[in-house]
Amino acid sequence: MPGRQLITLTTDFGYKDPFVGVMKGVILKISPEAEIIDLTHGIRPHDIVEAAYTIGMNFQYFPDETLHVVVVDPGVGSSRRPIFALSNHHFFLGPDNGVFSYIYGMEHEALSVIHVTADHYFLEKRSTTFQGRDVFAPIAAWFSRGVRMEKFGEPITDYEKVALPRPVVIPGGEVQGEIIITDGFGNAITNISQDDIDIACGAGAKDDCKIIFRGSEMPLKEFYAEGDKGSLCSVVNSSGLLEFFVYGGNAADVSGAAVGEKVAVVLRK
Amino acid sequence: MPGRQLITLTTDFGYKDPFVGVMKGVILKISPEAEIIDLTHGIRPHDIVEAAYTIGMNFQYFPDETLHVVVVDPGVGSSRRPIFALSNHHFFLGPDNGVFSYIYGMEHEALSVIHVTADHYFLEKRSTTFQGRDVFAPIAAWFSRGVRMEKFGEPITDYEKVALPRPVVIPGGEVQGEIIITDGFGNAITNISQDDIDIACGAGAKDDCKIIFRGSEMPLKEFYAEGDKGSLCSVVNSSGLLEFFVYGGNAADVSGAAVGEKVAVVLRK
Amino acid sequence: MPGRQLITLTTDFGYKDPFVGVMKGVILKISPEAEIIDLTHGIRPHDIVEAAYTIGMNFQYFPDETLHVVVVDPGVGSSRRPIFALSNHHFFLGPDNGVFSYIYGMEHEALSVIHVTADHYFLEKRSTTFQGRDVFAPIAAWFSRGVRMEKFGEPITDYEKVALPRPVVIPGGEVQGEIIITDGFGNAITNISQDDIDIACGAGAKDDCKIIFRGSEMPLKEFYAEGDKGSLCSVVNSSGLLEFFVYGGNAADVSGAAVGEKVAVVLRK
Repeated sequence: MPGRQLITLTTDFGYKDPFVGVMKGVILKISPEAEIIDLTHGIRPHDIVEAAYTIGMNFQYFPDETLHVVVVDPGVGSSRRPIFALSNHHFFLGPDNGVFSYIYGMEHEALSVIHVTADHYFLEKRSTTFQGRDVFAPIAAWFSRGVRMEKFGEPITDYEKVALPRPVVIPGGEVQGEIIITDGFGNAITNISQDDIDIACGAGAKDDCKIIFRGSEMPLKEFYAEGDKGSLCSVVNSSGLLEFFVYGGNAADVSGAAVGEKVAVVLRK
Repeated sequence: MPGRQLITLTTDFGYKDPFVGVMKGVILKISPEAEIIDLTHGIRPHDIVEAAYTIGMNFQYFPDETLHVVVVDPGVGSSRRPIFALSNHHFFLGPDNGVFSYIYGMEHEALSVIHVTADHYFLEKRSTTFQGRDVFAPIAAWFSRGVRMEKFGEPITDYEKVALPRPVVIPGGEVQGEIIITDGFGNAITNISQDDIDIACGAGAKDDCKIIFRGSEMPLKEFYAEGDKGSLCSVVNSSGLLEFFVYGGNAADVSGAAVGEKVAVVLRK
Repeated sequence: MPGRQLITLTTDFGYKDPFVGVMKGVILKISPEAEIIDLTHGIRPHDIVEAAYTIGMNFQYFPDETLHVVVVDPGVGSSRRPIFALSNHHFFLGPDNGVFSYIYGMEHEALSVIHVTADHYFLEKRSTTFQGRDVFAPIAAWFSRGVRMEKFGEPITDYEKVALPRPVVIPGGEVQGEIIITDGFGNAITNISQDDIDIACGAGAKDDCKIIFRGSEMPLKEFYAEGDKGSLCSVVNSSGLLEFFVYGGNAADVSGAAVGEKVAVVLRK
């Protein structure tokens, strides 16, 4: 027995209100043995792209067969569908608004997506504003009790995708990317991966390329403490992505670096 | 066996300090099998009314026989009593300062309230500033280990109530209420329920009534995404209460809507 | 069976990002039966001294043999060592940067510290920026599965200590201390303990001493609600330390009281 069925929660509910606690209550009322872990509730309100990156880049640190519930759902109550997906041996449950776009874009053995229609599993009394409580929590709970994914609805292939900015990689020359997330330390994470840099500039040839941001070269460091106190530097972070930081400071505050700003990695002549 | 004894925690401790973690340590030291769920620790500091609404409107989403510990306690260390209550098949533990007023006001099968005096269950070394740790956590832990409520003290009937603003419902005409909570999305929740509206304006006759706030009519929507971007609208929320929101925005920021402001629902002539 | 192996987490990761959730995923993937409790993730970014106080003053509220993981680690990725310590029947895991200095300074039966070198227990793919995920979470997980502390590396005695400001106690006269932490309520906690006051001014002779802050005497109260609304008072808090507060307010906001400011307790003539 590998422990209790694991359910992760990722939302934009924040920490002021009882919304997350209520979802846990609903789950445990149906499925007392479920084990619930918060991935984060700090997604920017209504930011589907940030949610897509967050679940897409982190689900693999959980055990296979974990169910990941993502509720970032500005269209709650409208006709947008609830969906249940299986990919890379993990399960995903949330609104069909693109929050799983990163996962859809991954190479994987199999992807199946269900439109959740089996409303006899939902809470009996339902609202139009809190489907995290009324729809997603009970479906997660019933799944954790052993109801199979197929029981929740019909397979679909026209699930919603949002565009996640992809870097442009020019072999033997350049990567053009952008900042996609700023984290709680103020670090500005780009969509340029170590792999992208290797393709563009040659593997392992770190000194042969330069990082360009706002027209200036940014030093590339091995780890944060190598950075010069107070000035913007870059590092390849724990997701394998190029990231700007300020050692002992907050890069977003110091530099104003913001999501969407362009970044390039260029082969040194 | 329906799982481990569930204990929920609701406090104004926030998330900066180790206070909540320490309460969990004390509980698990006494009762290793207890299961602890955070309802929220984001109650505004010392806001007994917000605590009363939060626990009162949400406890029912947890399994019967859950113990709900509420520590919003500006009078900690004074002579205010610790109390243990049973209502609606749920248990409640906290200071006798009105945090359970919403629950006292509910129709229910039974309500019993105990003044907790059995101090041999408290931590041996006690402070005057952190009874969450010294009194409420150990009582919760011993309860979860099977000590019966009656063992903790003597029944009382003079428990403290705070006034929770009730709407004035005039059948065939009008409801006069007010904003009672603003949530983390900036939504402003009123004390006017769908039932109140039905009594005043007739059930199901949604188009026959208008929502008046600051002298203007506010559109009533079915769900958030129906709202006009950037402008204040209303919806009946997941607690069945009339709520103001701004789709894609923050109603409290946009409008300055604040707790205590008056709201009316009026039958359209 | 006294329940599952308890692991506490104390970090400066905050609540915006998925970092804490990912650490839990890594732990549960290796050790599904581990039980993980958040002490706090609200340590000020990179504040080793605040981390040292937080874990040092609170670990004892958890059961013996709990493992406390502390990740406040500005030097992550550099040559600073990961360490595993045993003290006072509790286990501690984190970077060798002084986060356990308070614990090293305690009187105890035994202290042993290991430099963690057994990298076959680390995640296979490792970053230089997130050892909470790559090093500390897996070591914690393997420990909770029964791997003995000694297996993780070699004993050391040259572990890093940071200076924690100690009060100067002059028997029969005065204690000179300072503010060491401000908490989420705005309370300003000093390093002056009740014991220090007793030594300087005589045990139990509370009225014989006065609290001096910025040249003025601050009233000493028994509990918060005894304070005068809006004005700075002092109390001996739940850690046995002298603390400034404003009843019904926020002492840090009202007075600007900040970490490092001097405080004295002086015998009244």
